[in-house]
Formats: sequence, C-alpha cells, structure tokens
Amino acid sequence: MEAKHPSESRTVLTDLVLPGETNQLNKLFGGELLARMDRAAGIAARRHSRKISVTASVNHVAFNEAIPLGSVVTVEAMVSRAFNTSMEVVIDVWTEDQENGQKTRVNEAIYTFVAVDEQGKPTAIPQIQPETKLEQQRYDGALRRKQLSLVLAGKMKPHDATELKALFL
Amino acid sequence: MEAKHPSESRTVLTDLVLPGETNQLNKLFGGELLARMDRAAGIAARRHSRKISVTASVNHVAFNEAIPLGSVVTVEAMVSRAFNTSMEVVIDVWTEDQENGQKTRVNEAIYTFVAVDEQGKPTAIPQIQPETKLEQQRYDGALRRKQLSLVLAGKMKPHDATELKALFL
Amino acid sequence: MEAKHPSESRTVLTDLVLPGETNQLNKLFGGELLARMDRAAGIAARRHSRKISVTASVNHVAFNEAIPLGSVVTVEAMVSRAFNTSMEVVIDVWTEDQENGQKTRVNEAIYTFVAVDEQGKPTAIPQIQPETKLEQQRYDGALRRKQLSLVLAGKMKPHDATELKALFL
Amino acid sequence: MEAKHPSESRTVLTDLVLPGETNQLNKLFGGELLARMDRAAGIAARRHSRKISVTASVNHVAFNEAIPLGSVVTVEAMVSRAFNTSMEVVIDVWTEDQENGQKTRVNEAIYTFVAVDEQGKPTAIPQIQPETKLEQQRYDGALRRKQLSLVLAGKMKPHDATELKALFL
Amino acid sequence: MEAKHPSESRTVLTDLVLPGETNQLNKLFGGELLARMDRAAGIAARRHSRKISVTASVNHVAFNEAIPLGSVVTVEAMVSRAFNTSMEVVIDVWTEDQENGQKTRVNEAIYTFVAVDEQGKPTAIPQIQPETKLEQQRYDGALRRKQLSLVLAGKMKPHDATELKALFL
Amino acid sequence: MEAKHPSESRTVLTDLVLPGETNQLNKLFGGELLARMDRAAGIAARRHSRKISVTASVNHVAFNEAIPLGSVVTVEAMVSRAFNTSMEVVIDVWTEDQENGQKTRVNEAIYTFVAVDEQGKPTAIPQIQPETKLEQQRYDGALRRKQLSLVLAGKMKPHDATELKALFL
Repeated sequence: MEAKHPSESRTVLTDLVLPGETNQLNKLFGGELLARMDRAAGIAARRHSRKISVTASVNHVAFNEAIPLGSVVTVEAMVSRAFNTSMEVVIDVWTEDQENGQKTRVNEAIYTFVAVDEQGKPTAIPQIQPETKLEQQRYDGALRRKQLSLVLAGKMKPHDATELKALFL
Repeated sequence: MEAKHPSESRTVLTDLVLPGETNQLNKLFGGELLARMDRAAGIAARRHSRKISVTASVNHVAFNEAIPLGSVVTVEAMVSRAFNTSMEVVIDVWTEDQENGQKTRVNEAIYTFVAVDEQGKPTAIPQIQPETKLEQQRYDGALRRKQLSLVLAGKMKPHDATELKALFL
Repeated sequence: MEAKHPSESRTVLTDLVLPGETNQLNKLFGGELLARMDRAAGIAARRHSRKISVTASVNHVAFNEAIPLGSVVTVEAMVSRAFNTSMEVVIDVWTEDQENGQKTRVNEAIYTFVAVDEQGKPTAIPQIQPETKLEQQRYDGALRRKQLSLVLAGKMKPHDATELKALFL
Repeated sequence: MEAKHPSESRTVLTDLVLPGETNQLNKLFGGELLARMDRAAGIAARRHSRKISVTASVNHVAFNEAIPLGSVVTVEAMVSRAFNTSMEVVIDVWTEDQENGQKTRVNEAIYTFVAVDEQGKPTAIPQIQPETKLEQQRYDGALRRKQLSLVLAGKMKPHDATELKALFL
Repeated sequence: MEAKHPSESRTVLTDLVLPGETNQLNKLFGGELLARMDRAAGIAARRHSRKISVTASVNHVAFNEAIPLGSVVTVEAMVSRAFNTSMEVVIDVWTEDQENGQKTRVNEAIYTFVAVDEQGKPTAIPQIQPETKLEQQRYDGALRRKQLSLVLAGKMKPHDATELKALFL
Repeated sequence: MEAKHPSESRTVLTDLVLPGETNQLNKLFGGELLARMDRAAGIAARRHSRKISVTASVNHVAFNEAIPLGSVVTVEAMVSRAFNTSMEVVIDVWTEDQENGQKTRVNEAIYTFVAVDEQGKPTAIPQIQPETKLEQQRYDGALRRKQLSLVLAGKMKPHDATELKALFL
C-alpha cells in the first residue's frame, strides 16, 4: 500500500452552537464537543484507511476555552500517523470572531482509531508521509504517545518505551 | 463596503449519517438534511455579512439521490449573490464512496438569508464579486431566482420581472 | 384509481417550541421547522397515495415571521395536486396568541413527494379533485410550479413550459 | 368565566416513528410516546385555560399495543374536566393502516395540569361543558379519578372520597 | 423460580438538566422526566426478570416540584411486586442542593412492565420478597393498585376488587 | 476544608442503548458514550467540590469493547484525587449480561475538572482521602498523570516531572 499525506484525510465539520447543545452556563456542552470530534475524527480515519474505523481510545483532549452559545465552531481532523492497523488522529477546534472573522484555536484533541474489515477484524492500512513541519512534529510525537498509551494500559513496560524514555533522560 | 468573493463565505460541514438521523428506509431523513443545510448556509451568510443572519426563504432543494445510513455527507455552502440586505446561498451536498473515496453530488439547494442588526432590523451587506465560471453562472441566475421568488410571493408583477421574463421570450 | 380530495390527506402536527429547538435568538430554529414540515408533508403524501412517499424537492418555503420560544406551532399539510407518481404538498404554519387564542399564519411551504413501491420504483397515485376555492387556486398553481421546477433543473426548456410562459406574456 | 367545550381545547399531534425514536425492538420507545403525550396535553391545557399550564400528575397510561417503526401516530388531547385551578386532560393515541388508512386506537392516557400565573401561582380557569356522550362519560369519571389521586397521595381519606366509594358499594 | 429482593433490581440514573431538556420556564421538561423514568424502570424490570420487559402502563406520576435547569437529578427505580408475568416498579426522583448536597425527593412514579420472550409472549418471572418496612408497604399497596388498574380498564368489576374495596369500607 | 473520601462523590448513571444512540454497526456511538461519561464525571466533580465544575481535559479513554444496541450500560464516576482547584475523575463503564446479570467492565476513562466560582474563577476544593486499595492506587497514579498532562501541554519540562520520570529509570 502506498503511503498517504495527512491532508488526504483532512475533515472539516463547521457548525453552530445552538441552545440544545449548551450546558447550564450557556457554553457548548463538553460532551457535545467530544461527540463532534469523534464524528470528524472517525471520518478522517475512514478517509485515510478506506475501511470501517472504530474509536479505540481518546488520548488527550484539552478544553482551553469555553465556547459560547451562538458561536461558529470548526472541528478539523487529520490522520497524523498510521501504525499497522491503527491511526492517530489530531483534531483542532476553532471559533471565529463575529465581527472580523478572526479564528482562535480553542481546543485540541488526539484520538486513536482502528481499521476493521466486515467481520470487525483489524486490517492493514497505508502509512503516513508528512508534508509540512507541523505534520512532521505530530508524526514524531505520535510514537511517544502510542508508547505512553501502552504503558498506561499496562501493555508495555516503561523500560521498553524507548522513544518515551528518551524524553526524561 | 468592499465586495467579497464567494469563496470567502465557503462553509464545509462534513458529518456521518447515524441511525438516529435516518428515516424508516435507513436513508438520511429529509428533515435532518434540510436542518444541516440550514446550519451550513446560515454560517456562510454570517461569514459574508459579518452580521446575524436569519433564514428568509428556501428557494429550491432537489433530493436527487437518497443517502444511506453510514454515509459520509459533505454539505458545502457559499454566498452566490448579495442584494441590499439579503443574500442567496447555494448549497451542494456530496457523498463519497467508502472504497475509492470518489465524490458524488447528490443534492443541491438554494436558501435566502437576511442580515439583521441587534434589533433585528435588516442591515446593508457587501456585494459579491464572482471569480470562477460556476460562481458567475450562479451569480447571474440569482437575480432571476429573486424575481421568481417575488412573483411567487405576489410582491412583483410577472410583467416587471424583466430578467425572468427574458427566459421565456 | 378514484380521485381524492385534498382534505383526505390533511395532516396536523401541533407542537411546542422548547429550548432545545431554538436558535441563539430564542426563536424556533429554521432547520427544526423544515424538519417538522417534512414530517407532516410526508404523512399527507402517504395518506393521499397509500404508498411509501419520499421527499423529491422543496419548492418554496417563506419564513415570514420568527416563532418565539414557548409558542404553540401548528403545521398543516395537504396534497394540492397529484401528477403521475408525484404529489405537490402545501404546508401552512400557524401560531396562536397565548391570551386570546387568535391564530396567525407565519410560514408557508411547498414540497414535492414521489410515491414508491417496495423496491423504491415510482408508482401511480390517485388524482386530486379540489373542493374549495383555495384548493382550486393551489391546484392551478401546481402545474406552473412543476414546470418551473423542471425548467430550473434543466429538464424542460422554458419555451415548452406553456403554463408558466403564459404568466409573462 | 364562561364554561368551554372540550372540543375548544382539542389538540392533534400527528407524526412519524423514525429510528431515533424506537426501542431495541423497533417499536416506538415508551418514553418518547409519554413525551409526545405531555406536549399535546400541555397545549390542550393551555388552549382551555389561556394560561401557562404545568404537568401536575400522570394519572393513567395504558400501552395496549406496541407501535412499529415507520408508523403514522396521532396523539389527540382534550380537556375532559376543569376544577378550580387544575384540569384533567384525556389523550387518545391512534395509528393508521398504510394500505387502507383505517385507524386503530392503541393507547390512552390521563394527565392533570395546573394553570399558573407569571409568578407560578395556581390561577382560576373556566369550567368544562361536555357536549357528546363520550365527553359526558369522561367528565363524570374525572371526579372519581381526582378523588383517587388525592387518596393515593394521602391528601384525602378514602372515607371522604364519596364518588369513588360509591363504585365499591 | 426463587423470589428476589427489591434491592436486586435497584437502578440508579443520575444525570444533569441541560438546556435542551427544559421547558420554556427553564425547568426539566415533564416529557423528558417521564422518558428518564421509563428507561430506569425498564432496566429495573429487566434486572428482576432477566427477560425483555416492555412498558404496560404508567399507573401514577406525581410532579410535586419543578426541577430547575442545571440540577443534578437522581432517578431510582426498584421492582416493588411481581405478579405472574407483570411487575410493578416504583420510581423515586431526587434533586440535591448544590451547596450542602442535601437530597430532596421531588417526584415519585409507579409503572407496570410485562416480561416477554423472544416472540413477545408474556413469560413467568420470580416473585418479590420485601426486606425493609418501606418495601413491605409498597408490596402491600401494589395489589390494590393492580386491582385499581384492572377496574379502571374495565377488566375487573369493582365488587371483585377485594383488597381495594377494603380501603373504602 | 476537610478532606473527603472518593465514595462521597460516587455517581452512577445507568441507562439503555437505544437505536438513536448507536453507530452504523449497531453499537453504542463513541461520541454518545463520551458525552455520558462527561455528564457523570461532571456530577462527581460537583459532589466533591460543591462548586460549579467544568471539564478541563480528557486524559485517557480506552474503548476496550463495543457495546451492542439494547445493552444496559452503567457509567460510574468518582473523584480519585484533588489538587488545588482541579480534580481527577476516574470513570468505569460496565455492561451486564441479559441472562445472568453478570457485569463486565468494558471501558474506563480519566477526565479532569476545575471548580469555579460564579465569575468562572478557579476556586479551592477539599482534598481526597482514599479508603480502599484501588482508591489508593488511583490516587497515587493521579500525580503522574497530572505531570504527564502538563508535559504534553508544554507547561512542565520532562526533567521536572519527578514522579513520572521515576517510572522510566
């Protein structure tokens, strides 16, 4: 299988924040944002793998800024690195100023998906070939994050997580 | 106010079709698609006008092909022409093949929005300067569609709808 | 098949406007109203045809007045004219005054549905026999609107749209 | 205040059963039906009282027949009797046969609403004057049901529930 | 089949009141609460019977206090008595004070469920053995409520409802 | 402020998986599960802090097993450790066997919340005093996870993350 670029899986979900999607402080409800990110990231994983893709884990989500009712929210997802059958997807969340249209990045998230065949068995997928500097950084970080995830799940010994260990030495 | 290009208001809402959004035939429910188009088109209108924008009318929606459960659906909206305080927004709807990623245009729609100030009073907006051939065609058609809408609403006499009349002579 | 009266397909959907169905201005969200109209109109089409009926197009929706949170909204749909396998459905939307119960017509819409058999193939339906003056007007207008729709979709030449052309001559 | 007829508060909510409203057996989810009945009954209470009306109790709901996915469901609510500040609302639920349109009554329910003013204080409402035989029966039964409700809530001694007691003697 | 204790079916559904679940007075919408109670009660019935359980009737719901937006709401359901194939489920609804955590019981409800096999045929279930004083009271009351339900449905003559009749003599 | 036990914030949200909450494979949709966990965890954070609590980050969610349509799902959340103004909440997700009621832990997640005052300013909260062995383990792990989160966000140098570093040496 030929490697693909992150941009080939780029998925954009722009939508409003309506009252039925807010919490009691009139901000976008966290669970609703998590769901939108899951939908966009799942599409990015499918666009990269051309297979059914299921959420394996959420590795990190930072809620830096609350998003008020009435905002325009853009969720942008892209596969940052592919392993044998799993993919890391990075998601950026933007809002834009009503008056001047300026965009602010308010959240970011990292999800992992697994590509499966019709029987639900994990299946091989193309690798990722980063193009931009940011894509390269995210590609490099993905291996550390994968090791971290395995360590946290007790499936890898910290000692064997060489990429991750290097951070601390 | 300086004129803007259609691409400056381009809004993309890519999302899945989940079971809670289907009709009893396991296709995307028409009302759900109309709602997604309304959300995307409202954002496009806001991006063009930088004002609160409210739906004034739906001028035409063609449901050419039913969209099955599990599809990836892209709703793409763009302002095609601006009048004094109202804008025509054209919306294209695409699905993509799971295997090869090929996109098919399955629906299109035309909505009209009005820009309002804080008191809900219609307010002036920038004009549109088309760039591509398709944008020019849609720009030209918008005037005929506006006349048509006024005729249908009984607010313009067919005789005065000069652009529209020309079609039939 | 015997012709039927518009009243035989009359469908009434009266419901509240709750906070989860509003936009950020505390009015009924346009997409939600489009969905309610689609549901009511689809039932009217089914009552007329006694077949599965799918939305073919939305021909016109005028949002004349915003509907505030807490309103009682009545969506009333009725088949206005039947062609071979398709039907035009006219929808009126009413609100009522909390104090004196007086009804105001705030929106109207025209949708087209196609009756299909179990395999999704278009199937013949009964004709419409209008009874009231308003029903007759809507019946007459339906042919012009159908020609218009075909012209806009590029499936009929303006020159052949005789009913429509007559309007402008 | 002048008495009103049950028909003056008659409220009809006809809607489809879509997949997002079913249980795992592909029937209309009980909670969704309870919600639709609450909405229709609340509108009937408001139409009778011309006041804000809040649900005080659900007195009885019989789920006689499960309603399959894709059905057309008609919820019809009407005030059956008014007391000082509270109203009993009777709700009938119908489905209709796809082929011949024949209606079947599948559920019925009895809700009680209280009319309140802007401060949420119970406020006086018009009495009910039944017109048909069924309306008279329901009017008569309402007093027994009110006594029953008070007895069950421990707010009336069984001995004092004269109407109800008569049933058993 | 061995009898089971009410506590073996105890089901707790604690959740927030978000804006999309309120009525126009910013209180939890009655229909939403009825749906939550139906879900919790259905799980309790399933836990008792270990069978598919469908809502047969709602026997009584008292809305004693409105529940404001932003509240934490606990719905607690438990089978109070089992008959041959049907079960009475009692549901208590609690809110808690934001400052001191004190719980207040704001609503209670009684639902009846029937256990069915794969073909939807009613099927035998274990009996209930109450343990606490409250469970015993509810167990005793259940028979009167069942008779009452049968009388109201016209399936039992008041004269034969011996348990119920005793209340009034 | 007196320290509190994890059990004092224990929050249980038991609910069904209905068709409107599934993905196209008829399993609980990942985004819906993330939303339910956010709701339960937010209540646990509020119960511990007795303050408004907002989601700061999702630190880890493992989707070990897909949850089929019709399942009973229990989401159980508990504060595992409190820092100055933030809390780590651990969430366990269980399903239960329809036949024998046996519970299986299918997912786990770690969220971080911040307690805020009426003006949205972070505010001090009670510490956690673990009681069981599992609570102690989670309490100990929380500090490493906090350091990890700070390192990933670029707010702490790996070298200074002493607890975390110890894992790899």
